[in-house]
Amino acid sequence: MKIVALAGGVGGAKLVDGLARVLSPQDLTVIVNTGDDFTHYGLKICPDLDTVCYTLAGLANPGMGWGQINETWQVLQSLKNLGGPTWFNLGDQDLGTHLERTRRIQAGECLSQITRAFCQVWGVQVTVLPMSDEIVSTQVITTLEGTLPFQEYFVHRQCQPEVKGFRFTGIEQAQPAPGVMEALRVADIIIFCPSNPWVSIDPILRVPGFREMVAAHPVVAVSPLIQGQAVKGPAAKMYRELGITPSALAVAEHYRELLSGYILDRSDQQQVEEISRWGIITLATNILMPTVEERRRLAEETLVFCEQIITQRR
Amino acid sequence: MKIVALAGGVGGAKLVDGLARVLSPQDLTVIVNTGDDFTHYGLKICPDLDTVCYTLAGLANPGMGWGQINETWQVLQSLKNLGGPTWFNLGDQDLGTHLERTRRIQAGECLSQITRAFCQVWGVQVTVLPMSDEIVSTQVITTLEGTLPFQEYFVHRQCQPEVKGFRFTGIEQAQPAPGVMEALRVADIIIFCPSNPWVSIDPILRVPGFREMVAAHPVVAVSPLIQGQAVKGPAAKMYRELGITPSALAVAEHYRELLSGYILDRSDQQQVEEISRWGIITLATNILMPTVEERRRLAEETLVFCEQIITQRR
Repeated sequence: MKIVALAGGVGGAKLVDGLARVLSPQDLTVIVNTGDDFTHYGLKICPDLDTVCYTLAGLANPGMGWGQINETWQVLQSLKNLGGPTWFNLGDQDLGTHLERTRRIQAGECLSQITRAFCQVWGVQVTVLPMSDEIVSTQVITTLEGTLPFQEYFVHRQCQPEVKGFRFTGIEQAQPAPGVMEALRVADIIIFCPSNPWVSIDPILRVPGFREMVAAHPVVAVSPLIQGQAVKGPAAKMYRELGITPSALAVAEHYRELLSGYILDRSDQQQVEEISRWGIITLATNILMPTVEERRRLAEETLVFCEQIITQRR
Repeated sequence: MKIVALAGGVGGAKLVDGLARVLSPQDLTVIVNTGDDFTHYGLKICPDLDTVCYTLAGLANPGMGWGQINETWQVLQSLKNLGGPTWFNLGDQDLGTHLERTRRIQAGECLSQITRAFCQVWGVQVTVLPMSDEIVSTQVITTLEGTLPFQEYFVHRQCQPEVKGFRFTGIEQAQPAPGVMEALRVADIIIFCPSNPWVSIDPILRVPGFREMVAAHPVVAVSPLIQGQAVKGPAAKMYRELGITPSALAVAEHYRELLSGYILDRSDQQQVEEISRWGIITLATNILMPTVEERRRLAEETLVFCEQIITQRR
């Protein structure tokens, strides 16, 4: 079974890590949101790509949801002394990633090539692809403060401004990165990881040609919300501010036209009935992944569920 | 007595530090070579400016001649892991300087402003000015390998290629940095620190209008060579490759038209006679500065000598 998984940051990275522990490397391709990417201190920073790769490499900081384990902060201290902006945490080892990526970009390499090279160094065996090599910038449209670049909203303002919409600057001109369309073409099923629908999965789906290709395949999504709350990040707050009650059901509705199957938390069991009415097959299980064992267990259940979906569609 | 000192890297920084320990801050302006500046990993790096400022701030690594004391190397290790070029040593604290400088340049500040801000943070009280806010790039013309950017020659190739000349790209368009001409105008005397004549002092003198302004003042130079050898760096090797026997005398001849006074090492005493014949007043003393006390002692002797020169010219 060939799997393509779409992922944003922490939640997505955890399920992807579980999948990578169960599948053969050649059977899993991860396509990662790059709408969060931004330039800071002149450096090209790709938060979701790094979170996914660090997690797969076993380098991720387990407590934080960003950055590397055993990180040091000498450079950030030096920046602080000099009065530079320190709202975005740049660890020393992490900075190596940003610096070398920036150097290679300036030397003419593209993000997908660089990601492949880094994965090789880090011993990541599954294929990790940025959704696009072109720059796409997620902009958060707020009710009171105009439009904020994503990291400004997410990290600097800690998701406080009220959201009324999103814009993905550059998306119309973006090409899927090399390998993306090929991976989709041969996929038996596509998994939407438990990532933020608005700012992690939507930008991937909005890459020209991407959604159409996804629509030609069975899709299983895993809810990023449990009992109306995000495990991490602003997804639930965004739903509320957009006038939608946050729930596993709301996420299923978000993806409705594309979904064949939907995995939600056992505690949201009562929402299964309505989702089933839309012709979507559901699996209610424990979707929280506090440990590596839980990642693996959810990945295994997800794959069994995927096989069912594929069989039923035949 | 108002002093302007022209300086490159280590030797220059040591004498400047001595002068700063003796003079009132308002009486010393240091003008630093920026021909060595380059871009690496997208960062604006100013080796001479940093060496001078770190030395004045008491932050310089005493053993190395570059970088900061108590430095750590986490980022460089990360770059090495990822296969990035590591020939230029980027310490973690030092990287803070390069990152914040790059950020400010990209935000529209100029190098002289940034240098002033950093000096304030570092507690450097004397005025340190880059020779120019515009980019000037020292190029080393070699006999066998064409033209190499200075840091490529100096650090990456460890000064091995044979030199046949120098080019200072951008020098014709460069303006003296704000404050440079004013400092020269009110100077009672100008000191050429013991820095490389070819690649540290010459680029400063080549900034349009600079040499003419220097020529209107008494100038005292301190030899960077002792017994035909550079204390540090490729000055002696360059002289040889350019067909000139390296010596204190050769340096005096290099600056000849501009010099009122010349300070050379006691061990080069026998060269005094010829230099005197050119109408240059000499002082033979101990010019090696292995300790902070020696920096101070040489600075004091230099200032007494400068006063003599000024008195004699009246």
